[in-house]
Amino acid sequence: MIVRPSQHWFRRLFGWHGSVLPKIGFRLSLNLAMSIIAIVCFQWYESLGVHLTTAPFSLLGVALAIFLGFRNNASYARFTEARTLWGSMLITHRSLLRQIKSVPLTAETARECAALQMAFSYSLKHQLRNSDARDDLRRLLPSRWHDEISRSPAPASRVLLCMGKWLGELRQQGKIADILWQSMDENVNRLSQVLGGCERIASTPIPFAYSLILHRTVSLFCTLLPFALVTDLHGMTPLVSMFISYTFLALESVSEELEDPFGVEANDLPLNAICIAIERSLREMNDDFPLPPPQQPDRRRILT
Amino acid sequence: MIVRPSQHWFRRLFGWHGSVLPKIGFRLSLNLAMSIIAIVCFQWYESLGVHLTTAPFSLLGVALAIFLGFRNNASYARFTEARTLWGSMLITHRSLLRQIKSVPLTAETARECAALQMAFSYSLKHQLRNSDARDDLRRLLPSRWHDEISRSPAPASRVLLCMGKWLGELRQQGKIADILWQSMDENVNRLSQVLGGCERIASTPIPFAYSLILHRTVSLFCTLLPFALVTDLHGMTPLVSMFISYTFLALESVSEELEDPFGVEANDLPLNAICIAIERSLREMNDDFPLPPPQQPDRRRILT
Amino acid sequence: MIVRPSQHWFRRLFGWHGSVLPKIGFRLSLNLAMSIIAIVCFQWYESLGVHLTTAPFSLLGVALAIFLGFRNNASYARFTEARTLWGSMLITHRSLLRQIKSVPLTAETARECAALQMAFSYSLKHQLRNSDARDDLRRLLPSRWHDEISRSPAPASRVLLCMGKWLGELRQQGKIADILWQSMDENVNRLSQVLGGCERIASTPIPFAYSLILHRTVSLFCTLLPFALVTDLHGMTPLVSMFISYTFLALESVSEELEDPFGVEANDLPLNAICIAIERSLREMNDDFPLPPPQQPDRRRILT
Amino acid sequence: MIVRPSQHWFRRLFGWHGSVLPKIGFRLSLNLAMSIIAIVCFQWYESLGVHLTTAPFSLLGVALAIFLGFRNNASYARFTEARTLWGSMLITHRSLLRQIKSVPLTAETARECAALQMAFSYSLKHQLRNSDARDDLRRLLPSRWHDEISRSPAPASRVLLCMGKWLGELRQQGKIADILWQSMDENVNRLSQVLGGCERIASTPIPFAYSLILHRTVSLFCTLLPFALVTDLHGMTPLVSMFISYTFLALESVSEELEDPFGVEANDLPLNAICIAIERSLREMNDDFPLPPPQQPDRRRILT
Amino acid sequence: MIVRPSQHWFRRLFGWHGSVLPKIGFRLSLNLAMSIIAIVCFQWYESLGVHLTTAPFSLLGVALAIFLGFRNNASYARFTEARTLWGSMLITHRSLLRQIKSVPLTAETARECAALQMAFSYSLKHQLRNSDARDDLRRLLPSRWHDEISRSPAPASRVLLCMGKWLGELRQQGKIADILWQSMDENVNRLSQVLGGCERIASTPIPFAYSLILHRTVSLFCTLLPFALVTDLHGMTPLVSMFISYTFLALESVSEELEDPFGVEANDLPLNAICIAIERSLREMNDDFPLPPPQQPDRRRILT
Repeated sequence: MIVRPSQHWFRRLFGWHGSVLPKIGFRLSLNLAMSIIAIVCFQWYESLGVHLTTAPFSLLGVALAIFLGFRNNASYARFTEARTLWGSMLITHRSLLRQIKSVPLTAETARECAALQMAFSYSLKHQLRNSDARDDLRRLLPSRWHDEISRSPAPASRVLLCMGKWLGELRQQGKIADILWQSMDENVNRLSQVLGGCERIASTPIPFAYSLILHRTVSLFCTLLPFALVTDLHGMTPLVSMFISYTFLALESVSEELEDPFGVEANDLPLNAICIAIERSLREMNDDFPLPPPQQPDRRRILT
Repeated sequence: MIVRPSQHWFRRLFGWHGSVLPKIGFRLSLNLAMSIIAIVCFQWYESLGVHLTTAPFSLLGVALAIFLGFRNNASYARFTEARTLWGSMLITHRSLLRQIKSVPLTAETARECAALQMAFSYSLKHQLRNSDARDDLRRLLPSRWHDEISRSPAPASRVLLCMGKWLGELRQQGKIADILWQSMDENVNRLSQVLGGCERIASTPIPFAYSLILHRTVSLFCTLLPFALVTDLHGMTPLVSMFISYTFLALESVSEELEDPFGVEANDLPLNAICIAIERSLREMNDDFPLPPPQQPDRRRILT
Repeated sequence: MIVRPSQHWFRRLFGWHGSVLPKIGFRLSLNLAMSIIAIVCFQWYESLGVHLTTAPFSLLGVALAIFLGFRNNASYARFTEARTLWGSMLITHRSLLRQIKSVPLTAETARECAALQMAFSYSLKHQLRNSDARDDLRRLLPSRWHDEISRSPAPASRVLLCMGKWLGELRQQGKIADILWQSMDENVNRLSQVLGGCERIASTPIPFAYSLILHRTVSLFCTLLPFALVTDLHGMTPLVSMFISYTFLALESVSEELEDPFGVEANDLPLNAICIAIERSLREMNDDFPLPPPQQPDRRRILT
Repeated sequence: MIVRPSQHWFRRLFGWHGSVLPKIGFRLSLNLAMSIIAIVCFQWYESLGVHLTTAPFSLLGVALAIFLGFRNNASYARFTEARTLWGSMLITHRSLLRQIKSVPLTAETARECAALQMAFSYSLKHQLRNSDARDDLRRLLPSRWHDEISRSPAPASRVLLCMGKWLGELRQQGKIADILWQSMDENVNRLSQVLGGCERIASTPIPFAYSLILHRTVSLFCTLLPFALVTDLHGMTPLVSMFISYTFLALESVSEELEDPFGVEANDLPLNAICIAIERSLREMNDDFPLPPPQQPDRRRILT
Repeated sequence: MIVRPSQHWFRRLFGWHGSVLPKIGFRLSLNLAMSIIAIVCFQWYESLGVHLTTAPFSLLGVALAIFLGFRNNASYARFTEARTLWGSMLITHRSLLRQIKSVPLTAETARECAALQMAFSYSLKHQLRNSDARDDLRRLLPSRWHDEISRSPAPASRVLLCMGKWLGELRQQGKIADILWQSMDENVNRLSQVLGGCERIASTPIPFAYSLILHRTVSLFCTLLPFALVTDLHGMTPLVSMFISYTFLALESVSEELEDPFGVEANDLPLNAICIAIERSLREMNDDFPLPPPQQPDRRRILT
C-alpha cells in the first residue's frame, strides 16, 4: 500500500508514484508507435481504401468503460473484503483478550493467550504470502505449543485448534464458566472465519475469462485507436490517443493489482504493518512493554 | 475454474484459454459472413434506397452495454455467493471439529464427527452436479450411519439430521454440556444454511426473460452491425465489426457460464478440489495421516 | 418462473417463451405504426420545417438506459430478496426440526412440529397471493391447533404464536432444557423474519414515481424515435426503430414483472413448488412416506 | 406513499399522480421559455457569432445521467433501509410478544408488554416527524409507565429503558428464567437498533455537496439545452427539449424526495399506516378485539 | 457536515455553500484561461495543422464519468460506513446501559458505566482526529479509571479493557449472573467492532492509484477540453467548457472529501455533535440532569 503522499497539487499531478506506469509502459509505448505509424500511413488511406472513423471506436470505448467499471467494482470489493477481514481479526483479538482478562486468571495465562493470537496473525500472513513462518513462530510461541504448530502443514488452522484445546482445558479446570467459554469460543469462530475468508480470496481469482477478455479488448482497442483518430486529428493523434489509452490501461492495471490483495506490490494490503499493529495492541493490553516499533513506510512511501 | 496461467504478455494476449471462444464461434463467424455480405451489398445501397448509419447502433450498443453490465453483476454475484457458501462450509467444519476436540472425548469420536462432515461436503457436491454419491458415502461413513444416509433421497440434508442426532446423544449421555451443545448446534445450523443456499442458487436461475432478451438483442445487434458500419468503414468493416462483436458476445457468454456456478465447465467452481481440501483439513486436524493429495489442475490448467 | 428451456440456439433465438411479448405488443405495434407514418411524412419534413436528428435521441436513449439499469437493479434485488427469504424458510424449517429430533421426544411430537411448520409455509403463500388457506390448513393441522389458526385474520403470524406456545409447554414440562428452547426459539424468530420480510416486499412497491416516470419516458421515447431515425434511415426506419424499442420496452416490462415477485406470472417465484419442496423435505426427515410428488412445470414450462 | 393505481395503460400514461410535476413545474416552464427564446434568437446566431452544437451537451448529459444514477442509488438505499428498519420493528415486536406469551404469565402482563411496544412505535413515528406524541402515549400506556415516558425529552428511547426495567423485574421475581430474559433482551436490543438506525437516517442527509452540485448542474443543463438543440431542431426544439428536461428534472426530484423517507409527502413511508398495522398485529396476538381499522388511502391514493 | 440550508430555489442555485468551490477554484480558473487561449489560438489552427474535434473527448468524458461514478460509490460507501459505525455506537451504548439498569444495582454503578461509555466515545473521536483527549477524560472519568486510561497510548481500546474488568468484577461479586454478563459482554464486543471499523477506515484510504489516476485524467481532460470545443463553439467555448469542467471537478472534489470522513471539513462527519448527543442520551437515561446543550451549527451552517 502506498501511503498517501503530500497533497501539493504539483506533486499529485506530476509526481512519480510509481506503481502503475511501469506495468503499462510497454503498451503505452506501443500506442505511441501506432500513433506515429498512423500519421505516416494516413496519406495512403485514400489510395488504400482504408476508412476508419471515430464513431465505432466511441461505441466500443464506452462499452469497454462500462465493463471496466464492472471489473473495478469486483476487484475493489475483493480488496475491501480482505481489508475488512484483517480489521475483523484485530477486533476479535482484542475482544478475546479482554474476555480472558475479565476472569481472574494469572497474568501468565493472559500472555499465553496473546502469544497464540499473535502466532495466528503471523502464520496467516506467511500462509497468504507463501513465506516462511518458522522464525515468527519460534519468537512468539511458548514451547508447549511450538512443536505441534510448527510441524503442521497448516499452522494458522492449527493455532486455532490449539486455542480451542487451551480454552477447553481452562473450562474443564473450572477456571472459566461454560457461558464464558461460549463467548470466547464465539470469538475463536470469528478468527476461523477470517482464516477461511482470506483463503477463499487467495484461492479464487475473479473468473479468468473476465480478466482475459478485458485485457485483450482493452489492449487491442488502444492499439487500433490511433488509426481511427488520425482521420480527424492528424498531427494531434499521439497526444489524444495516449491520453485515452493511459486512462483505460491504467485503470485496467490497478484492477489487476487489487484483485490479489495479499501480494507485496504497491497497492496491496500492508500485512506486515497490520501484524505489527496487532502485536502492539495485544502487548499493550497486557502491559507487556516495550512494544515493537510500528512499521515505517519505506523510501517510496510504501508499507508492506 | 481455470487456474490463472502465467502472466507473460504474449500468452495472455494470444494464448488459447479455451472456454469462451468455442461458444461464440458460430456467432462470430456469422458476423464475419455478414460483414462480407455487407461489403458486397454496399454498392447497391444507393439504388436500393438502403440508409444505415452508425448513430442508432451507437445508441443501441451503449444501451446493450449497460444492460450487459447489469447481467454481469447478477451472474458474478451468484458465482461469488456460491463460492462464499463453500468457503463458509470449510470454516464451519473446522470450527465444529475444533469444538468437539476441545471436549475430552475419544479420538474415535472426533473421527466419527469428521466422517459425517466430509460425507456432507461430498454429498452436497454430488447433489449439485447430479452425480452419484454412493462411492464417496461408502468410503467415508462408518456403518452405523451409512445405511440411513445412503438410502435417503436427500443425503446431504440427512447427514445434518444424523449429526443432530449424534450431538443430541452426546448431550444426553452427559459428555457435552448444554451450552457446548448450543455452540455446536449453531455450527450445524450454518451447514444447513450452506446447503439451503446452494440449493437456492441451483434451482433459481436469473429470471429467464433477462437472459433471453439480452441473448436475442446482442445476437441481432452483432448480426446487423456490419450493415451499418459498412457505410463508414467500407473494407475495414470485418475488422471493426468482429472486434465489437467479440467484446459483446464474449461477455454475454461468460455471464451465462457464471450464472450456473456448480457445473463442470472452465469457469465453474472447482467443487472436487474444494471437497478434497475440506477432507485434507479435517483429517489434518485429527492427525489422520496420510492426507489425500490435493487435486492438480489438468492439462488445460482447469480444476474441476 | 419459466423453467430454463433447452439451450439449442435456434429455439433460444426464435422460440416463443411468451411472457414478455404480449405485454409490450401494443407499444411495439404503435412503434411500427409511427415508423410508417414517419416514412410517409418524411417528404413533407422540408416544407413543414420539421428538423429532427438522431443526436438528442441518442443522449436521451443513453440516459434512459442508465435509469432503466437502476430500475432493473432495484427490481431484481426485490426478486432476489424474496427468493432468499423463502430459501431461508426451508433452511430454518430443517434446522428447527433437526433440533426437535435431537431431543428424545416421541415421533408424534416431531410430526406435530412439522405440521405447524408446513402450515406456516402454506398460509404465508396464501397470504401473499390473496388465496384461500383453509383447505391446506385443514389438510395439515392437528385439530388442537386448527381452530385457533384458521379463525385468525393473520394465520401465518398466528402459526408462529402457536409454535411459541407449543415450545413453551415442552419447556415447562421439562422435556427440553432452557438452552435448547433458546436455540429453537431463535429459529422461530427467523421464521418471523421471513414472514415480516415477505410482507414488507408485498406491501411496499418501488416508489411509484420511479415506475411512472420510466414508463412514461420509455413509451414516449419509443413513440418519437421513428421521426428522428427517418432522417438518416429512410426506409430502414421500421427495422432499427423496432429493434431499439424492443430492447427498451422488454427490459422495462421485465423490471415491472419482477418488482412484484409473489404473483403467478411467468417470471414470478414458484411459491407452490417451494411449498411442496418444503413439505417433502420435512416429511422425509420424519420418514413420513409417501412424499407428495414434486410440482411439474406446465405445458409452457412454467412452475407456479 | 402512493398506492399503486390501476394498471390501465391510458391512466398510467396520462393520469395525474401528482407528486412530481408540481415540484419541477417551474423549471419545466423555464425550459419552455428558454426554448422559445432560443427559436427567436436563432436567426441572429450567425451575426452574433454564437456557435452551439449538440455534441458537448450530449457528453454532459450522459455524465449527468451517470451521476444522477449514483444519487438515485443512494437515495433509494436510504428509503429501502428506512422501510427495512420499520419492517424489522414489526418482526421484533411479534417475536418479543410471542416469547412473553410462551411463558405462563397472566394475560394482563402480555397486554402491558404490548402497550409498551405500541408506545415505542408511535413515539418513534412522532419523533421522526416532529409531531406530538402525547395523545398516543396517553391512549396506550398504563399509568405506571405513562408519567416517566411522557416527561422524557426522548420518549422512544425511554420506552426501551422501561421495557428493560420491566423485563428485569420479571426476571428478579423468578417469572422468567435467565436464558429467556436473554432471548427477550436480544429483541429489545433489536428495537434499539431500529431506533438508532432511524435517527441516523433522519439526522444525516446525503452529503449536501452532492445534492447541490447535481441540483445546480441539472438545472443549468436544462436551461442551456434549448440553445444547443435549436441549431439542429429549429421549430421542434420545445418538444425535444422539454422531454429531455422532464426526464432529468423528474428523476432528480424523486431522488430528493426519497432522500428523506420519514416526511409526509407522496413518496415517503406511510408511518401512520405501519404504526396501525403494528397495533393491529400485536392486539390480534393478544386476542384484544376489536382491532383498530387499517388506514385507507386518501382521495389521491396516498397513505401517510 | 453542512446542515441542509433552506430549500428556497434561489438560494439553492446561487447561494454560497462554500465547501467545494475554493478547492476547485484554481483548476476552474485554469480552464477559463485555457478557453481564452484556445479562442485566441483558433485562428492559427489551420496554419498550424492542429485538428481537434469533440468526438474523442466525448468518448473520454463518458469513460471518465463512469470511473468517477465508481469512485463516488467507493467514497460514499466509506462515509456511510463511518456514519453507521458511529450510529451503532450510540445504539450499543443505550443497550448496554439499559441492561445495567435492568439489574438491581446502585445509581452510582450505572453512572460509572455511563462514564466509561462516554469516555470511549470521546477518546475515539480524539484518536480519529489526532486531537488531545486529556481534557475530556479528566472531565468524565472517575479517579479509579482515569490514571490507567489516560496513561495508555491507545485510550479508546483501554477503556474497553476497563469495561471488561469492571463487568468481570460485578460478575465475580455475584451482582450480575453469567447470562447477563454474556449479553453485556456482547455489547462491549460491538463497541470493539466500532473502534476497529473506524481505525480501518482511517488507516486504509481508497487505493491511492485510483485517486491519482482519476485526479490526473480529470485535470488533464478539463485542461484540454477547450481546445477541442473551440472548433465547434468558437466564442461560446468558455461557457460550455467551464460548465463541463465544474461538473467533473466538483464531483471529483466531493469524492475526495468524503473519502476521509473523520476530518473537520464541511462534508465530514460531525463527531463533536455525535459525541455530545451520546453524552446527552446516556445522561438522560440516568436522570443525570442538567444535560449539556446540543451542538449548534456555526455561521456557515456547519456542524463539526
